[in-house]
Amino acid sequence: MATPAAHLIPSRSAKRANYEPETINAILDEALYCTISYSSENKPYSIPTAFVRYEDRIYIHGSVGSHLMRELEKGIPVCISVTLMDALVIAKSAFHHSVNYRSVVIFAQAEKVEDMASKIEAFKWLTNKIVPGSWDYLRPIQENEVRKTTALAFKIDEASAKIRTGMPVDDDEDLNLPIWTGLIPLQTKRMPPIPDKLSEGMPLPSHLVHI
Amino acid sequence: MATPAAHLIPSRSAKRANYEPETINAILDEALYCTISYSSENKPYSIPTAFVRYEDRIYIHGSVGSHLMRELEKGIPVCISVTLMDALVIAKSAFHHSVNYRSVVIFAQAEKVEDMASKIEAFKWLTNKIVPGSWDYLRPIQENEVRKTTALAFKIDEASAKIRTGMPVDDDEDLNLPIWTGLIPLQTKRMPPIPDKLSEGMPLPSHLVHI
Repeated sequence: MATPAAHLIPSRSAKRANYEPETINAILDEALYCTISYSSENKPYSIPTAFVRYEDRIYIHGSVGSHLMRELEKGIPVCISVTLMDALVIAKSAFHHSVNYRSVVIFAQAEKVEDMASKIEAFKWLTNKIVPGSWDYLRPIQENEVRKTTALAFKIDEASAKIRTGMPVDDDEDLNLPIWTGLIPLQTKRMPPIPDKLSEGMPLPSHLVHI
Repeated sequence: MATPAAHLIPSRSAKRANYEPETINAILDEALYCTISYSSENKPYSIPTAFVRYEDRIYIHGSVGSHLMRELEKGIPVCISVTLMDALVIAKSAFHHSVNYRSVVIFAQAEKVEDMASKIEAFKWLTNKIVPGSWDYLRPIQENEVRKTTALAFKIDEASAKIRTGMPVDDDEDLNLPIWTGLIPLQTKRMPPIPDKLSEGMPLPSHLVHI
């Protein structure tokens, strides 16, 4: 959730829908989780879950026995929502306060990933997204672990991003008021790794070294 | 999204539903936004939005003309989801990787906040949540701004929290593998405020001074 050079952004606000795959993919690739919603008897249900994008699909996983996986694998309509918060936007009035954010909404239906090799690929992408470079370092995945886990794919077809950037936009008649305006950037960071008891004194593998 | 003394947490993992109001409220009060889902013709829709909890209700706001506000104020069933990510949980196998998180799901229906004074109260709570101590500093809210904004309340009645804490839980037969295990804490921080052109050189008001 970086806020690259927020102060370099022109002070006109922009808040608009965007349908470009590069924009949508960049948001999806930065987010660690999505919120998946589905309807059952016209009642909505939402659940946060880890995900990875690969090419034009999103992949999630879960226990074969989980209620969510069993509902979604039926192919019912799903709404996938991803939000990155970049800054609080501080205006002269409460009314013009806002938030700089990047969000994506995707409407899709699950396709179940059935064959072993494709499932393992999806788990590899997911693992390497959450902890880059880790898959080859870990104890290799076992067949029974793959069998116990459902992998679902969602084609990124009906998707849009919404982005607000820039400074607050106040009413003209407020501009001379001696009230501070600007941004409070928000940043989500990975902190230095904390070993558990088994790993105390063990050197960190290179892919986990905190820079 | 603090990770208070993650290394002090016992290395047994815990992942369970929790229905205690104090637990649920603490998560709601720390989160800057929620994801609201609703169904229309059995299709799910999700939208992230700022919110504040006050006593046993959640409040959101939006333009009187917004499609979301007009749908929700009908009193249809809504699912409100809030997620805080605390740490990535690094195990010896991909299968046992996990995430330490705190999430809340609420099922509710909107009650429209109708009278002027109650709406202003809700906007004050919301503003002071996002930027503590700011309401009294800002240009006072105007009647037409209140009229242009819908405020909706949701009673926190049917709500549950889900929390995972602690270290990875690996298979017994993997415990001796020379693979690093532990946590990568995640932290969301407010960074030092960035003034816009109008506020360059203006001293920061005390409630915005970054500590």
